[in-house]
Amino acid sequence: MDREKVDTFKYVREMNELLKDGGLFLVAEGRDKKPNAMTIGWGFLGTMWAKPVFVTAVRHSRHTYRLMEEAKSWTICVPSKGMAAALEFCGTKSGRDFDKFREMKLTAKKGVGVDAPYIEECPVHIECTTVFKTDMKPGQLEAGIEGEMYKTRDFHMLYFGEVKGVYAAKDAEKLV
Amino acid sequence: MDREKVDTFKYVREMNELLKDGGLFLVAEGRDKKPNAMTIGWGFLGTMWAKPVFVTAVRHSRHTYRLMEEAKSWTICVPSKGMAAALEFCGTKSGRDFDKFREMKLTAKKGVGVDAPYIEECPVHIECTTVFKTDMKPGQLEAGIEGEMYKTRDFHMLYFGEVKGVYAAKDAEKLV
Repeated sequence: MDREKVDTFKYVREMNELLKDGGLFLVAEGRDKKPNAMTIGWGFLGTMWAKPVFVTAVRHSRHTYRLMEEAKSWTICVPSKGMAAALEFCGTKSGRDFDKFREMKLTAKKGVGVDAPYIEECPVHIECTTVFKTDMKPGQLEAGIEGEMYKTRDFHMLYFGEVKGVYAAKDAEKLV
Repeated sequence: MDREKVDTFKYVREMNELLKDGGLFLVAEGRDKKPNAMTIGWGFLGTMWAKPVFVTAVRHSRHTYRLMEEAKSWTICVPSKGMAAALEFCGTKSGRDFDKFREMKLTAKKGVGVDAPYIEECPVHIECTTVFKTDMKPGQLEAGIEGEMYKTRDFHMLYFGEVKGVYAAKDAEKLV
């Protein structure tokens, strides 16, 4: 499936609607070169340092955390409408226990401009390289959110990835 | 001008295009209740903690920094096409030296659901309350960006604002 580079913000509304309901995939591989996908419901596509940037949040306890620490690049993959089972699996199972690509029959393909793989079955994907990260600190957070989201003190690392390109399959507009 | 609450992400693409080219206004007032507008070219509208969130970045040296530290709420105001002069003025002058609302003949109106004011001449505005902030730390940033953007070590505070509502004037679709 050939992909063309599209405007960074072409699918920003659809992506935000998916973050609210269903999710996107965060795909990374560590030094062992085993690709892994985690379903995310939190994220931001915007601009910082005069560059397009995607912000994603990963808890320290997650398998993906090690991969993000080892890899310089990662991708955000936008599912098509028929991928609910993969979103569910990748959002509830750990890459420590499962090869999610094999279990869900997903195809990992090397990024167009980065080393990180993307999911070929996803009609749109974003390629990013980490340019900034910051650990969330307790006490800087509104008390209600801290109580609800961080009962076990398992805070998030925020990764700011420079967007190197947004790529869409030819029929992406019909699929997203 | 009456405003109606619209879908959080209705204008997300237009807002991102404006961040890239022209800017948006960040409006806040401190304890002295003097509203101030700063033009921003960096920002993110997305989802975190299962809530809609806008992320904005303010350098410690800015007049707006004090206002953001004093106020719990602030607004992001989306300019209409004819507001280039106000964007230019609010992006190059400091609120320490000018009453920008008076100079640019802007009207400050109290938010629908927050204390912070918005600019009535802007057809769309977002109302936010700060729920998290984090200081950017040198050394966690890609070296090229650090050298280019932070020569004077005047780092940004990142403010994560829970979006309490996005409001649009009746004719907003024609004006943004």
